[in-house]
This record gives sequence, C-alpha cells and structure tokens, in this order.
Amino acid sequence: MEKNFRIHYPASQKIYVQGKLHDIQVAMRRINLLDTSIKSLVVYDTSGPYSDDNISIDANKGLPRLREAWIERRDDTEKLSSFSSEYCNAHQSDSESDTVRFKVINLPRRAKTGKNITQMYYARQGIITPEMEYVAIRENQQNDILGISTYITPEFVRSEIAEGRAIIPSNINHPEAEPMIIGSNFLVKINTNIGNSALSSSIGEEIEKSVWSCKWGGDTLMDLSTGKNIHDTREWIIRNTPVPVGTVPVYQALEKVNGKIADLSWEIYRDTLIEQCEQGVDYFTIHAGLLQAHLPLVRNRVTGIVSRGGSIIANWMTLNGQENFFYTRFESICEILKQYDVAVSLGDGLRPGSIHDANDDAQFAELSVLGELTKIAWKHNVQVLIEGPGHVPMHKIKENMDRQIHNCYGAPFYTLGPLVTDIAPGYDHITSAIGAAHIAWLGTAMICYVTPKEHLGLPDKEDVRNGVVAYKIAAHAADLAKGHPGAQLRDNALSRARFDFRWRDQFNLSLDPEKALEYYKAGHLGNESDHCTMCGPHFCAMKLSKQCLDGDNKVM
Amino acid sequence: MEKNFRIHYPASQKIYVQGKLHDIQVAMRRINLLDTSIKSLVVYDTSGPYSDDNISIDANKGLPRLREAWIERRDDTEKLSSFSSEYCNAHQSDSESDTVRFKVINLPRRAKTGKNITQMYYARQGIITPEMEYVAIRENQQNDILGISTYITPEFVRSEIAEGRAIIPSNINHPEAEPMIIGSNFLVKINTNIGNSALSSSIGEEIEKSVWSCKWGGDTLMDLSTGKNIHDTREWIIRNTPVPVGTVPVYQALEKVNGKIADLSWEIYRDTLIEQCEQGVDYFTIHAGLLQAHLPLVRNRVTGIVSRGGSIIANWMTLNGQENFFYTRFESICEILKQYDVAVSLGDGLRPGSIHDANDDAQFAELSVLGELTKIAWKHNVQVLIEGPGHVPMHKIKENMDRQIHNCYGAPFYTLGPLVTDIAPGYDHITSAIGAAHIAWLGTAMICYVTPKEHLGLPDKEDVRNGVVAYKIAAHAADLAKGHPGAQLRDNALSRARFDFRWRDQFNLSLDPEKALEYYKAGHLGNESDHCTMCGPHFCAMKLSKQCLDGDNKVM
Repeated sequence: MEKNFRIHYPASQKIYVQGKLHDIQVAMRRINLLDTSIKSLVVYDTSGPYSDDNISIDANKGLPRLREAWIERRDDTEKLSSFSSEYCNAHQSDSESDTVRFKVINLPRRAKTGKNITQMYYARQGIITPEMEYVAIRENQQNDILGISTYITPEFVRSEIAEGRAIIPSNINHPEAEPMIIGSNFLVKINTNIGNSALSSSIGEEIEKSVWSCKWGGDTLMDLSTGKNIHDTREWIIRNTPVPVGTVPVYQALEKVNGKIADLSWEIYRDTLIEQCEQGVDYFTIHAGLLQAHLPLVRNRVTGIVSRGGSIIANWMTLNGQENFFYTRFESICEILKQYDVAVSLGDGLRPGSIHDANDDAQFAELSVLGELTKIAWKHNVQVLIEGPGHVPMHKIKENMDRQIHNCYGAPFYTLGPLVTDIAPGYDHITSAIGAAHIAWLGTAMICYVTPKEHLGLPDKEDVRNGVVAYKIAAHAADLAKGHPGAQLRDNALSRARFDFRWRDQFNLSLDPEKALEYYKAGHLGNESDHCTMCGPHFCAMKLSKQCLDGDNKVM
Repeated sequence: MEKNFRIHYPASQKIYVQGKLHDIQVAMRRINLLDTSIKSLVVYDTSGPYSDDNISIDANKGLPRLREAWIERRDDTEKLSSFSSEYCNAHQSDSESDTVRFKVINLPRRAKTGKNITQMYYARQGIITPEMEYVAIRENQQNDILGISTYITPEFVRSEIAEGRAIIPSNINHPEAEPMIIGSNFLVKINTNIGNSALSSSIGEEIEKSVWSCKWGGDTLMDLSTGKNIHDTREWIIRNTPVPVGTVPVYQALEKVNGKIADLSWEIYRDTLIEQCEQGVDYFTIHAGLLQAHLPLVRNRVTGIVSRGGSIIANWMTLNGQENFFYTRFESICEILKQYDVAVSLGDGLRPGSIHDANDDAQFAELSVLGELTKIAWKHNVQVLIEGPGHVPMHKIKENMDRQIHNCYGAPFYTLGPLVTDIAPGYDHITSAIGAAHIAWLGTAMICYVTPKEHLGLPDKEDVRNGVVAYKIAAHAADLAKGHPGAQLRDNALSRARFDFRWRDQFNLSLDPEKALEYYKAGHLGNESDHCTMCGPHFCAMKLSKQCLDGDNKVM
C-alpha cells in the first residue's frame, strides 16, 4: 500500500482541547478567517490524524492507537495470546492471502472473565469514561464559544448512555477510532457505506473511499464488502479508519458457506461474530427482528424484501422451516458482543423499498420485535441502535419516528434516508436527503447516506463525496431545526462572509470548499471581486444593499 | 439560429387528449413499458412541440401559436397595427440590433376598450375557457387511470381561479405557451430561472437552456437577463418556449437608465411594462410591497437585502427620499397588466438571505403589504402569485406558509427554495430542495429552482438539468405527501419495474432516464441482468426476496 493518505482543508489547522477529568486531547478543526472580528471558527472534525501533519501516516502500519492506554488503564480486559475464532486462526496461516494481508498483527483484547466492559455498563455504574468526556468536549465546543458551557456535560453524556438514549460505539479492538456519540440529544450523525462486491473494487480503493468519507464528514463507516478478501479488506479499513466501523456479519458468514443460504448456521455465524469482534468492528447490523410470522405480511408488497440481510435470513427461514436464529440466539449474541463492547444495530430487514410499501404491517411488526430485543441487549449492557427505513413519503415519516420511540424505549434511531419518492434513480442522494433531514429533525440520531448510484451500482469516490455532503446538509439542517446550541454559528459566519464578499472565508467555511471554489472560478476566470457572475457587477443585490444601508443613514 | 432543438424521451410517444367542452388537444407523454400488465404510463409533459416529431421546429420562426384561435374566438381583444411602447418602436428601427433580432414580427394584441380579458375575469363570470379545460385534463389524466374522474373538473379549475387560489399565466401575446395552472390544489409546479448577465452567455445558449428546462420538467421559465440585447433575447425565448415566461421588468428599466438607480422613473418603468406585455411575458415579478418604513428593519440583518429587485427599489427610495413607486402606482400597473392578462408575482424584496434573517420583522412586514396589494390586483381581475423565501431553517418553514395563507387570502405561494442551511455553496440545489419539498407539502403552489451554482455563478446547461431534476423531486414528493390522486402511480410502476429487474422500464419511468442509464452502464459494461453492482449477483436482496416469496408457498 503506497498511498500517502492525507486530508487538507483550506485555511484550517488541527487543534486539540485538553480534557479536565481525563488526560485526553480532543481533536477539532479551526478555520482561520480574514474576518477581523471573530478571526476563526472551530468546527467538528471527523478527519482524524489524516489532517494532522504532525502525525506520520502509513497505511501499512495503521493509525495511532488513541484509546489503547485508556482501555489498559481500566484493567478489566486482557490481551489474548491468539485469536478466538476458528476462521481467523486458519486464515492467519493461509498463504493464499499473503498478498492482500495487513502485515501488522494486533492480538485481540477481550473482557476479563466476569467483567462487563461496555460504555453502557460504566455509565450505569456512574463512571464517566475518557470516551464520555471526549464526546462531551467534542459536541460542546460551539457552546463554549457562545458561553453556554453547561449544555453537554460529561455527566449528561453518561446519563444518556445509561438510559440507552445514546451510544458510543467503541470496540476495545478498534482503539484507532476517536470517540463519537449517537443519540437524539446530540449533533445528528451520518454513516457512509463502502465495500466491494463480487464485481469490483480493490482494497486500496476501499481505503481511499474510507479516508474520503472521513474528509467530507462521515461520522461512522460501514464496510459492506461481499466479494473476495472480505476479512483482509476489513482489517485494512479498520486499522486505517479514525471513526467507528460497522458491518453486517451475515454477509461474510454467507461467503463462508459459498453463498448457500440453507447452509448458514449458528456456529458459522457465531465464529464470524467473534472474528469480527476481535478485528475491531464497532457495531454489527443484525436482522434479529424479522420472524417467520412476518413473511406472509410481505406478500402484497410491491418490492418485497429489499434489505440484503433481511432477504438472506428470510430465505434461510423459508428453506429450513425454522425461526430466525439471530432472534432465537439473541442472548448468546449479546454474551459475545459485551466482551468487546460491540454495539448492536438492530436491522430492519423489512424496511419498505418503495413508497407503496411504507409503514405497512410487515415493517411495523418487525419494529415491535426490535423493541423486545432492545430490552434484552440492555440487560447485558450492550449498546443498541435501531435501524429504520427506507422509502417513505413525507406525510408518513413522523409515524416512523413516533413508533420507534414508543416501541424501542428511546434507543437511538438510525435510518437509511428515507427516500421520499421512487422516481429519481441517479438522484437518490437528493430524494433521501429530503427525508433524512426531516426524520433527523424529528429525532433520528444518525442518518445513513445514500449516493447518486443507489439502485444502479456501487459508488465511486466522487459518489461518496456527493453522498456525504448531501447528508452533512441534512444533518446540519436538522441540528438547526432542533435548536442545537451553536449549530447556527457556522451559518452566520458563512453568511457574513458572503455579505462582505470575503469569498475565501465563504468557501473555507463551507462543507465542500473545493467545489465552491471550482464553481466560483468557472465564472470568474480567477478574479475575486465584489460581485458574482449570477448578477454581474451592476445588479448585485448585496452590493446594492450595502450602498442602501449606508446611504440610508444620510437620506432617511 | 441554426440549432434544431428537439426533445426525445426513451420509449415515449407524444399523445393528445381531446377536450369535451372545447376543441382542444391536450399534450401528454406516454411511456411504453415492457410490463405486460399496465403496458404504459401517461405522464405530465412540459416539453411542448419539441417532443412531437410531427411538428416542424425552426427557432427562427418560433413555435406554433396554439392559443391564437382560442383568443381570437373570444373577440374581446384586437390586434394592434404597431407596438405601444416607445422603446419597442424605437428598437424596431435600430439597425444595431439587426444581427440579434428575431426576424418574424408578431404585432401585439390587447383588450378592446372596456373589455376585461383575464382568466380571473372569465372565471368570475362563470365562463370555462379552453385554457381552463386544458389544465383540467392535463392535471387529471392520472385520475382517469385510477377511475377518479371527478377530482379536477373544468368547473373546479374555474372556481379556484375565480377565488384567486390558482392562476393560469396566459398573456394573449404568448399563444405558443401550453396552459398550465398554479395553485395549492393542483400538482406542485416548478419554475426555472435562466438569463444572461453582463458577463456571459449568448442568445443561442439561453434558448438551449430554455428547451433543456422544458425537457427536464420546468413548468414555467423566468428570463432574468440583465446584460446586452435584453429585448431581443427575451423575444427569442418567448417565441420558442412552450411554457409561461416570467420576468422582473425593473432589470430592463434599469438598463435603460444605464444602471443609474436614481434615474429610474415611473414613465420608464411603465413603458417597459407595456413593451414586455406586448412581447408576451406571462407574469411580472414586481417588488411593490417593500416600503420606506421597512428599511430600518433591515439594519440588524446578517445579509441585508438579497433580492436584486428589492435592493434596486430600496436604493431608489433611499436616493430619492420617496415611497416605492411600484406601490404608489400599483393601480396603474394593474390597469396595464389586465389588458394583456399578465399575472403579477408580488416579489419578496425582503426575503431572508441567511438562516439568521429568516422570519424576521422585515420579511413579515413586507408580506402583509403583499396581502393588501393582492386585494387591489384582484379588484382588477389581475391574477396574483405571492413570492416567498429564501433561507429558512426547517422549524421556521411552517410559519411562512401559515402567514402567507392568512395575509394573502389564499393566493398561490411561490417560493425560492427555501434553503435550510447556509453552509453548502455548490450544493444549494440540495439545501433548497429539502426546504422546497417541505413548504410545497404545506401548500406552496410553485417552487423556484436553485442550481448548484447559486451564490457562485451563472448556471450552465448541466446546472439547469441538476436544478430542474432536484426540484421535480421536491415537487413530486410534495404531491405524494399531499395525497394528490394519481401521483403515486409513477412510483408504483417504477418500483415494480425495479423489483422485476425490468431495468429499461425503471430508467424510462424515471425523471432522468439518461442519467440512470449512464450510472447503470458504468457498473455493468453494457450487460443488463437480474442484479446490480451494488450487491453483485449473489447478494441481491430483491432476487433473494423473489426466491423467498416463491419458495414461501411451498415450505410454510
């Protein structure tokens, strides 16, 4: 792997804020402005070490292991002398994979016998971990600027996690990830999906997409690879990703039985969970709420089952005439996850795949089972996310949120869009950003991006950028609408720059400074001026407005 | 002008539905499907004669004059022997413009003395015009498929226009335009803005953008040109555009006084109105609600006045120490407009240009004056639109709609977005589509598109496409959310095609078949198959879902 992945933002510098309870340094980005009044604005930063020139980056070695010391200090986990999954041990000695293998071996860590080591457990014990203080500072920095320092305290973070209303995905085997929090009382987060399929994409391209996602603002990353080298691809991604990584473990389990769904078994799935827990996956999507009894409810749908994991387990149930083993074995799954603090993201295998199927009996029957499973996970102190749709017209969005809160006891909702119409393939980052902004405003904690290639093909790097920026827009719009303190500071700073014709400040404050500059230059041949090509020099409203407001003093 | 502008949609044919009350043929598009059950779907069509291969197109001659016979038959207008504006008569003999002049001269038509000829007047007399029947059929065709034939009757159209809740922009001098209706009880419409500035763009490019806008679904078109050859550019556009055309007449008036705002006068503006009425502009944006008393309210704004027309008249008031003459002369303006059935679009000169300024006193003070002006226009039977913002965070959108309905007595609302955040220049088609979908759901009748170049430069052809499609998404999403009968038929047909792997049907039913096909091909090297590159052949949820639902019958 030769690529030197680096992230640069114009006029920006990496800064670190020191913790008070713990010796931690919380990473942020300061955008320096030409504006002489506020001089700079500090913004939330997902780019990790890639944007810190003082940290050397080598994809072959992986990122610095930020949380390792915190985890060691708790002294409730132990480093194992070998991997615990059969697959991983066999894979280690499989010379066929040598060419794609990540060379540095990090032996896995696991809870000591009898210890519970999840953030939820700590929170319920009244313990404020470094992870909790980290996210409190991270979420809170805009409030400091406003002088509202009490909104998001480490204690508030702790209580939200204790209640299950928020999670910090933090597998002890992914210490490279910077802590982040997902919950409706915090900034809305966005997830991006990457991953190869049997048809395309190299490991290098996938890492490039991951870094690209972090650059544009992705808060978490799901590796949905289904093709070759699935274990090694994931290892490279986890070691080089500064945000939590999620997967759908059944994809790999299915690869292990050569795609024969009938051959899937609890034993193979269990081994896959352990394999991935020990690699450092931070959350697993598990479609444990889709039951045999739900299948007849799907019959009258236009688009049947559109969730990959959902369709796999539905087929398994049909082929074997047995109940979903993710459901029947859910306690056992929790027993595994809690040893590594892997969160469970309860999948919505029956999410609607078309406007026609939105809010139907199948969808809501599954949602109510997800509530039942939430209680079980919480009993084990396993952190929980609830996945949501899908395709939903605007007037049916609110019912999704209301039912989710009611059925799932306030566990964070994590939705895919929803897309508010079916008729725009090629533009589904837009159809879904409309729904995502709306549902996030109503309380959804994390929105999963959709790229322009949705329904048509795998996203490339530029699609990832377009998807992430569309979702940053939706998330930020929701933060504004929810009245999140400080969210509007960036809007105000950018709009002031716009009104003052500080073009560079306007671009540097924007979600995609490169794109803004590129579009501006297309019309200006490189000259910066006190007007834009939209209006030309004589018809600029803001220029005229300034004249008027100045002249105003004299004449009126 | 050598370009042969043509519009082709894949697997589509132009069809015409015969009127019952009048001898009219209403243009629609039939999309032929591989699906053997429904065979085809008829959709609303804005492409005019460009998509009918039986009609010859020559930009130098202009489009067929569809409505001319209808207008003549009413016998309440007369064809003048010369133009009525001083400017137009002088311009006719100005040899400097010969190179850019539209060669065919269509002498203008005007109401006979003492006659009122607006659609609102006819409606109030209980007359159902061919225009009203045309839009009833056009809006209604999906309902015919559903067997709901009584929803949008010609009589309902008449009553909505009589009440002022809807308008049919239909200048008697733009008979090339196909009738369309703007009102909250009809399909949500979208407007596109084109036009050159002093810095760029030829007449040919502007016509190309107009045709392009109609291709992708633009319902109306505003020519916001401010540069050279403004009269001739507009003439070429009107003669070649099958949808209503709007302008902001003060732009040209200002060109006539060489950009010196202080020199603007009622006489120059009046002559410009007449000039444009006789060219065939269907609606004028007039910033008549911005008063001297409002200017102090703008002081504390972040972005002052961002409306071009608003900033011009604000400067005029400040420089001259006089009240807005659009306001003081509003009755005279209506007297002119009603002779041609030009609608007035009451401009929101004080629309917020940033999240900070949304819903402030300045904005709402102007809105309440717009209500007062609405009453005056209606007294003259002049059709009215009310323009709205702008930049508004999601939680403040509803107040805009509620106040508009209350203050303006149900006159159709026509908003620019609104953009739900300021921080994404380069992506403002998305920030604004989120707000536009939301406000259209709440009742806004027409949404004005924003392109990715907003705030940065003038849109090119590709920007127009991206802006129009984003707004078609927003408008359609609102139609679904409002429960417009028939809106969901296209979603259902497309989703069925998707589930059946009828890729061509899926693309052909989509808002942008070319883009969908392009993205699909990028991942498939030209092969069509029963899976897509997102999941690859083994992990296709819909394929698995089919297997399951079939297998289901046997096993369960």
